[in-house]
Amino acid sequence: MQVAGWEHVFKLDPDKTLSDETLEAICESGTDALVIGGSSGVTYDNTVDLLARVRRYEVPCALELSTPEAAVPGFDLYLVPLVLNTERGAWITGRQAEGVLGYGPLIPWEATLAEGYIILNAEAEAARVTEAQTELDEERTLAYVDVADRLMRLPIIYLEYSGRFGDMERVRRARRRLAQGRLFYGGGIADAEQAAAAALAADTVVVGNALYADWRTALHTVDAVKRVKREGKLV
Amino acid sequence: MQVAGWEHVFKLDPDKTLSDETLEAICESGTDALVIGGSSGVTYDNTVDLLARVRRYEVPCALELSTPEAAVPGFDLYLVPLVLNTERGAWITGRQAEGVLGYGPLIPWEATLAEGYIILNAEAEAARVTEAQTELDEERTLAYVDVADRLMRLPIIYLEYSGRFGDMERVRRARRRLAQGRLFYGGGIADAEQAAAAALAADTVVVGNALYADWRTALHTVDAVKRVKREGKLV
Repeated sequence: MQVAGWEHVFKLDPDKTLSDETLEAICESGTDALVIGGSSGVTYDNTVDLLARVRRYEVPCALELSTPEAAVPGFDLYLVPLVLNTERGAWITGRQAEGVLGYGPLIPWEATLAEGYIILNAEAEAARVTEAQTELDEERTLAYVDVADRLMRLPIIYLEYSGRFGDMERVRRARRRLAQGRLFYGGGIADAEQAAAAALAADTVVVGNALYADWRTALHTVDAVKRVKREGKLV
Repeated sequence: MQVAGWEHVFKLDPDKTLSDETLEAICESGTDALVIGGSSGVTYDNTVDLLARVRRYEVPCALELSTPEAAVPGFDLYLVPLVLNTERGAWITGRQAEGVLGYGPLIPWEATLAEGYIILNAEAEAARVTEAQTELDEERTLAYVDVADRLMRLPIIYLEYSGRFGDMERVRRARRRLAQGRLFYGGGIADAEQAAAAALAADTVVVGNALYADWRTALHTVDAVKRVKREGKLV
């Protein structure tokens, strides 16, 4: 499974709670995939539990590996974040190498993709944990996009505003700049209107926290994204 | 120009001196390419000077961009090192992004390749400058090789022992581990015998300092590498 067809994705946090009813609605929402992962509190056990629950449905399911301890087999795809805008090498290559060291021959490389994260909201948990240099102007953001897309040739370039709705003009420019990668956008999408704006700017729209704040409203983001992608404009 | 056919490469340091006679012998030695670059003292001016001198010959010439200030147009290929085994993010992605910021539209991306450096000799100038974590055992070295080759999918994985002849068994294992990249080896090759051993282990053998110590002996490394590559064994 590759990510080329992903327009809308729900991100589920194993450290947070969803009822069976909510989870069923999410899995049958028409989203292109689920990504399981989080910045803190993710363990092997809560990841296995969530995987078992979503496996009752047909939606593809990827694991985003922020910590090697939560590497659970049985996902359709594994996503490995490299944080590009940090001075802490451990978050770019170091922890990734430690993860390889621990799992070695068990790693399903043919189902593993690197994500080049550019974290742009200083308030985000991920920014705090990775000591990301979030104060990038647009030109510096685009320079990191080039490093990820043209130099490192990563398959996914991820603009992460987690917790805050980002600058869609910057996201749009980043996507236009890409030579080969796919632009993921995540952060602060609470409703259909924001999802539609993000769908105009990015290749793939990621909706996460909204599921835990108001899941019924969050479900409307699927149709909003699909409509924009079909029409090529806000409708 | 790509690096797929490179078996032997001479690395020339713009901050060091070579007579015209020596430079001619190097350029007409049968080496597959010259790589121009160095860890210190490299400037725009001394890089331009060296390029002008080697351009009288037909040998392909690449620039290894350790510092954005020395980005000189007119090379056949540009190599951008990312040091994988450092805790200093600046040497993995930060300086690369600054370089993109400075040169932006002038960058010939179609002639630019990333090199994933793993620096293994603590005494090397490059290790000191980049604060590389050189104390890697073989398994950790191979984990970084996987990160570079399978996760980041870099075209070149470079085991750098600069100043010391390395562990050829480790180099051989690294090459066997590769899924798609090409393994460069550099460090401490003074004569034909060491070059032959390195040619058995690596895809591409880089000879640098020896040119400045005893260039006549260094020239014999070309035939030594070519013979091993042709025969598939020491001869």
